[in-house]
Amino acid sequence: MSSPALGVAVIGYSFMGQAHSHGWRNVNAVFDTPAVDMRVLVGRNAEAVQASARRYGWAESSTDWRATVAREDIDIVDICTPGALHAEIALFALAHGKHVLVEKPLANTMEEAADMAAAAQRAEAAKVVSMVGFNYRRLPALALARELVAGGRLGELRQLNIRYYQDWLVDEQAPMSWRLRKDEAGSGALGDLGSHAVDQVRFLTGAEVASVSGTSRTFVQRRPGAAGEEEVSVDDAIWATLQLDNGAVASVEATRMATGRKNALRIELYGSRGSLAFDLESMNQLQVCDLEAPTGAQGFTSILVTEPQHPYLEGWWPTGHVLGWADTFIHELRDFLLAIDGGSAASPSFADGLEVQRVLAAIEDSAAVGGAPVVVHHTDAHEAPVASR
Amino acid sequence: MSSPALGVAVIGYSFMGQAHSHGWRNVNAVFDTPAVDMRVLVGRNAEAVQASARRYGWAESSTDWRATVAREDIDIVDICTPGALHAEIALFALAHGKHVLVEKPLANTMEEAADMAAAAQRAEAAKVVSMVGFNYRRLPALALARELVAGGRLGELRQLNIRYYQDWLVDEQAPMSWRLRKDEAGSGALGDLGSHAVDQVRFLTGAEVASVSGTSRTFVQRRPGAAGEEEVSVDDAIWATLQLDNGAVASVEATRMATGRKNALRIELYGSRGSLAFDLESMNQLQVCDLEAPTGAQGFTSILVTEPQHPYLEGWWPTGHVLGWADTFIHELRDFLLAIDGGSAASPSFADGLEVQRVLAAIEDSAAVGGAPVVVHHTDAHEAPVASR
Amino acid sequence: MSSPALGVAVIGYSFMGQAHSHGWRNVNAVFDTPAVDMRVLVGRNAEAVQASARRYGWAESSTDWRATVAREDIDIVDICTPGALHAEIALFALAHGKHVLVEKPLANTMEEAADMAAAAQRAEAAKVVSMVGFNYRRLPALALARELVAGGRLGELRQLNIRYYQDWLVDEQAPMSWRLRKDEAGSGALGDLGSHAVDQVRFLTGAEVASVSGTSRTFVQRRPGAAGEEEVSVDDAIWATLQLDNGAVASVEATRMATGRKNALRIELYGSRGSLAFDLESMNQLQVCDLEAPTGAQGFTSILVTEPQHPYLEGWWPTGHVLGWADTFIHELRDFLLAIDGGSAASPSFADGLEVQRVLAAIEDSAAVGGAPVVVHHTDAHEAPVASR
Amino acid sequence: MSSPALGVAVIGYSFMGQAHSHGWRNVNAVFDTPAVDMRVLVGRNAEAVQASARRYGWAESSTDWRATVAREDIDIVDICTPGALHAEIALFALAHGKHVLVEKPLANTMEEAADMAAAAQRAEAAKVVSMVGFNYRRLPALALARELVAGGRLGELRQLNIRYYQDWLVDEQAPMSWRLRKDEAGSGALGDLGSHAVDQVRFLTGAEVASVSGTSRTFVQRRPGAAGEEEVSVDDAIWATLQLDNGAVASVEATRMATGRKNALRIELYGSRGSLAFDLESMNQLQVCDLEAPTGAQGFTSILVTEPQHPYLEGWWPTGHVLGWADTFIHELRDFLLAIDGGSAASPSFADGLEVQRVLAAIEDSAAVGGAPVVVHHTDAHEAPVASR
Repeated sequence: MSSPALGVAVIGYSFMGQAHSHGWRNVNAVFDTPAVDMRVLVGRNAEAVQASARRYGWAESSTDWRATVAREDIDIVDICTPGALHAEIALFALAHGKHVLVEKPLANTMEEAADMAAAAQRAEAAKVVSMVGFNYRRLPALALARELVAGGRLGELRQLNIRYYQDWLVDEQAPMSWRLRKDEAGSGALGDLGSHAVDQVRFLTGAEVASVSGTSRTFVQRRPGAAGEEEVSVDDAIWATLQLDNGAVASVEATRMATGRKNALRIELYGSRGSLAFDLESMNQLQVCDLEAPTGAQGFTSILVTEPQHPYLEGWWPTGHVLGWADTFIHELRDFLLAIDGGSAASPSFADGLEVQRVLAAIEDSAAVGGAPVVVHHTDAHEAPVASR
Repeated sequence: MSSPALGVAVIGYSFMGQAHSHGWRNVNAVFDTPAVDMRVLVGRNAEAVQASARRYGWAESSTDWRATVAREDIDIVDICTPGALHAEIALFALAHGKHVLVEKPLANTMEEAADMAAAAQRAEAAKVVSMVGFNYRRLPALALARELVAGGRLGELRQLNIRYYQDWLVDEQAPMSWRLRKDEAGSGALGDLGSHAVDQVRFLTGAEVASVSGTSRTFVQRRPGAAGEEEVSVDDAIWATLQLDNGAVASVEATRMATGRKNALRIELYGSRGSLAFDLESMNQLQVCDLEAPTGAQGFTSILVTEPQHPYLEGWWPTGHVLGWADTFIHELRDFLLAIDGGSAASPSFADGLEVQRVLAAIEDSAAVGGAPVVVHHTDAHEAPVASR
Repeated sequence: MSSPALGVAVIGYSFMGQAHSHGWRNVNAVFDTPAVDMRVLVGRNAEAVQASARRYGWAESSTDWRATVAREDIDIVDICTPGALHAEIALFALAHGKHVLVEKPLANTMEEAADMAAAAQRAEAAKVVSMVGFNYRRLPALALARELVAGGRLGELRQLNIRYYQDWLVDEQAPMSWRLRKDEAGSGALGDLGSHAVDQVRFLTGAEVASVSGTSRTFVQRRPGAAGEEEVSVDDAIWATLQLDNGAVASVEATRMATGRKNALRIELYGSRGSLAFDLESMNQLQVCDLEAPTGAQGFTSILVTEPQHPYLEGWWPTGHVLGWADTFIHELRDFLLAIDGGSAASPSFADGLEVQRVLAAIEDSAAVGGAPVVVHHTDAHEAPVASR
Repeated sequence: MSSPALGVAVIGYSFMGQAHSHGWRNVNAVFDTPAVDMRVLVGRNAEAVQASARRYGWAESSTDWRATVAREDIDIVDICTPGALHAEIALFALAHGKHVLVEKPLANTMEEAADMAAAAQRAEAAKVVSMVGFNYRRLPALALARELVAGGRLGELRQLNIRYYQDWLVDEQAPMSWRLRKDEAGSGALGDLGSHAVDQVRFLTGAEVASVSGTSRTFVQRRPGAAGEEEVSVDDAIWATLQLDNGAVASVEATRMATGRKNALRIELYGSRGSLAFDLESMNQLQVCDLEAPTGAQGFTSILVTEPQHPYLEGWWPTGHVLGWADTFIHELRDFLLAIDGGSAASPSFADGLEVQRVLAAIEDSAAVGGAPVVVHHTDAHEAPVASR
């Protein structure tokens, strides 16, 4: 901790910029990591970004991301812009030797994502660290889930059910926004929520997706816009069945029309020796069923994941004092800073981000033909379906 | 109640025969229906069926179903045999003018089911009543759910998620049985559990399935049999996405490999004005989210479905005294007897049973080609997928 | 089972008469017990009791309990009348050598209860069996709880929290009834609900109550009666702290004013090695926390108490098929019949019923003086409080 | 916000010092309040407090609380020391015209608490703001509960059940500490957990405690200390029944022996028109039962208290993104700063803190005589019990 603090710039200051600022402001208070200095918050509107910078604890604000990224006192670039800008900024920052954190999803197109993954891999040689911000990997309950699976506690994995339900589009009069236009948002629930689900499939199982069958639907096809009714060009909901290369099957569902579900990422894993269940709305709990328990005493045990030995809890409060959603960003930055400190690769990498997008694209392709299967990775384990990406 | 009691014969005395006997033994004590007389229990093993008959409260037992069905003092034939015998017995009974209740699924093949539906329709002219025993329609919570949907409380239905999870096949050493052979059982989780799920889709929504995309998997492909290892020829689990003719999409999943889930039929419905959630393991509760509630006070209300005004509760205990799984059979017989009394059609009819099997067959067909869509009913509402049944 | 069926008469045909009839009608179908014959249902209104008898499956009805009890073909007398009649009928039946089951609470006064306990003890010499009907001892989840405690799985018991919440008196306009008059009902929530709570304290722990501190309250003191407003002379709610002779402390609360709680008997036990939680509204589940589980994996395990090895499940359905409230009466009769068959004492005995009433009386006494302690049983384990009963 | 930032000093840097630092570090980023400057963290161990200051974001550290409090650039003094120091520091700070926040409980003795309340009242004239830190008033779910009660949504309040369960003393070998010595800690679960419970009784109902009946128990009376076995001189658990001056009765229980309950402050309120339930382990949810809902649709609604219109949510994330335990301190400081800004009284005041201690003392007094009642405030509403404090 005696080395000089790492200079940080965050690009983007709306929802994700605010959440990441929460992380930067608190990470050194909670965890033993390299010290950071919150130097610059960058945005397009000078006045607004200045106000946000002051509020969130940044020393300066700027409207020029290139100049900021190039500054000598900036070591870390944290990209929280809309997806369309991710690639350009990340490539520029990597080229300048800066450590880069990109909010998920990695990019809007497969091409951009592939370029970014390649650049990140090249930069790794110079100990330049890059990471994509799937923050739910940093939920203590899901990190514990990953430990249990990796430790073999579930036996052979067979079935996953992952559903990410929100409801902010239920009202047909909810107005048009950039998130509902394909050219700006890339997709709807698929990229926004489905990307988390697919990332969890890979994170929790350590397996790759071999092939998918997908469905998508836009329930409300026209919404009121600033200039009258406008067509919604992204999905409201998607469904997919994923064949994994370890023989398991994952059912994935993502929707913004699930009336009454505010932020319900619900995950269930079933294996030959045990199973797990999780709901983001009760994020401090993990349900574990263990077939090693005596017959007659088996069932789902609700673990309050706040013990000192649970993942990420070492810096926090005594047992039973629960964490909140935004704390996942503190955990994410802890891992990112420790990777920088160790000169090691961070996870999930840009290559992981690319892999998630490959699966999302396959779901889209399959949905376009009514659910016919699309190959993501060829595998010997199962017979080849008919199409491939 | 002054008319002579209706004579009943049940064919089959294992699990379902026992459950139906529970219904017959109690229906007159709980509900105002025509009186019944438990006359004959029929089975193949004379000694065993005699013991069961005595135990369950039947006046007599028999090993000859034809002779029993033909008896003048038998008014009602209740078929609880394995599926392969359903058609023969039901057609014989209808031909003899007997009211017929058939345990689900209606039959093992589409052809048999179609014959039965046709015969039932012909018999209706003579006020001969037939019904298929999807007992979960008689759960008070799901009957209440149906009322809420039909009354428009959920607005426009958009998404259903129906999963039927059991775990009795998790152990790879669980032995081979007739339920795991395609020639005897027809299918695995699909027909056993998926049939309930599909019946609920139709019951709760009142809509028909337009097309499906399906997946199936047998995780444990060989199991120990009496004469050494044997191949499992049915599915362990199935997944399907159903497009309904009212524009909604239903995700259906059925498995006997969901470690820790003993009998978890879990149903969620999402509409534009409200939503519902149910779990058979907590069968007396229905979760209801109603957007008519004031903002800030919305959420899922857990209704304990034991009030006098709730479906089927009129004959039971004071509020708060919960019912059990087997009580659904008492409710089923109530409805069957009231239909007989009124000379009216019972629901679900054999035609409903046929319809469920049409959907199951489409799921199988789709699964055989990796999830490519299969049409069940042509509809104008949505573009036609590529295959059809 | 080849011996002649035991002849049964039930005295009383309202709520409890109906519930016990459910038990008698089904006990032989579920369990291997001596066979029973449902001979006579007794009540004061000839027409009404005749209709009930026919409905519930009794061969005859009668308005003369003495003549019925004295009949030679009556072996078992099951008393479901209001409490004021319990003693007279039970003493008469015991004097005639009949096995006697009395619905809880045992009697309305300590004196009657003591007489009954003495008579029952005398009758025991002639293998005449008597039992009091605390049916919640027969909930599989609570019977399992008792097994766990008795097996030492909770270590040293320290705290119990038992609350029985109902809400049928919330409405101030709910009419006056006999249950709200002290001379008829003895007490309010205390005897009605608190008796179950106190019985569970003794059943689950195997300990006796040493002393109590109690509070009671009547929130709605006047209610509309047939002849205008009338004074409520029983409690609406009671609270008590019980010192047990094993060193544990039990907090007991009973109320009929707990808005939204329909039949919520909620029980929690905390010991040095584990703990338990139960709610009657979810009666098939028992929550168990076991400190033998590895640190980091501890929590409350939700056991669905429907496995073949769970108490009372041997005669029921496959795992996961849940039971209902009324099934506890089938279990109660199973135990009663097995005691008769074995010529052994049944539990809970009349002496147990007397003991419960001793505790209830002490709570009343303490409440009358604002909570000052009242001794129930002198014990060396704790310093003596100031009053005694 | 253009006025100079308020200078803050926190005295104490262990658990509560860390939690309050979390609040100070984040309050300006979340809420529109006067700006603060984290100037000095004070503690006895120079090295340790310096390390903590750097970690938690303080500009300086000090071992001299008097000098620090007296500094001109310190406007706010936040006292997080053990209770024995509260009075001295607070009186000194108020005398110097500083705004004072004191962590709960207000003091270790009634005398100190009374002095502090008097001093705070005097200081109020000079717009010097003081507040006691019962942070659970700032849980959005409980603040919403208070709004619902105050708005009459529960009708006439009748019963409260408040239990604060932890389990960190279950193990008999858990070592002796200052928290288990009466001279240092004042009391055990009573002051530590019971104080929160009593504060909630007053906060949620707006009523005062008229009288109490209490019980206390030390289950493990000797524990291993540094110098061999030592006697535990505080309670492990307490139980109390509180008569409120609005006619309601509150049952209060606090324990550190509730195996498996990590931080379970569980609150239930029952009124004539509705009821509420809350559990701190699921702190983002409030269960509300509203009798205004149609019959048959009533039950407990689980509100996820993360909507923009819910208390304290205006500065946070979109709906469904849950908060954590430590965020209550951010809310607490928001309210404190807004009171300073408005020159108005903060709540809960030192007088509130004094009132809580009066109730705790009465519980202790009653427990000492086996539960006999102790008057806290004379009231006309109910007959006077026998003792008074």
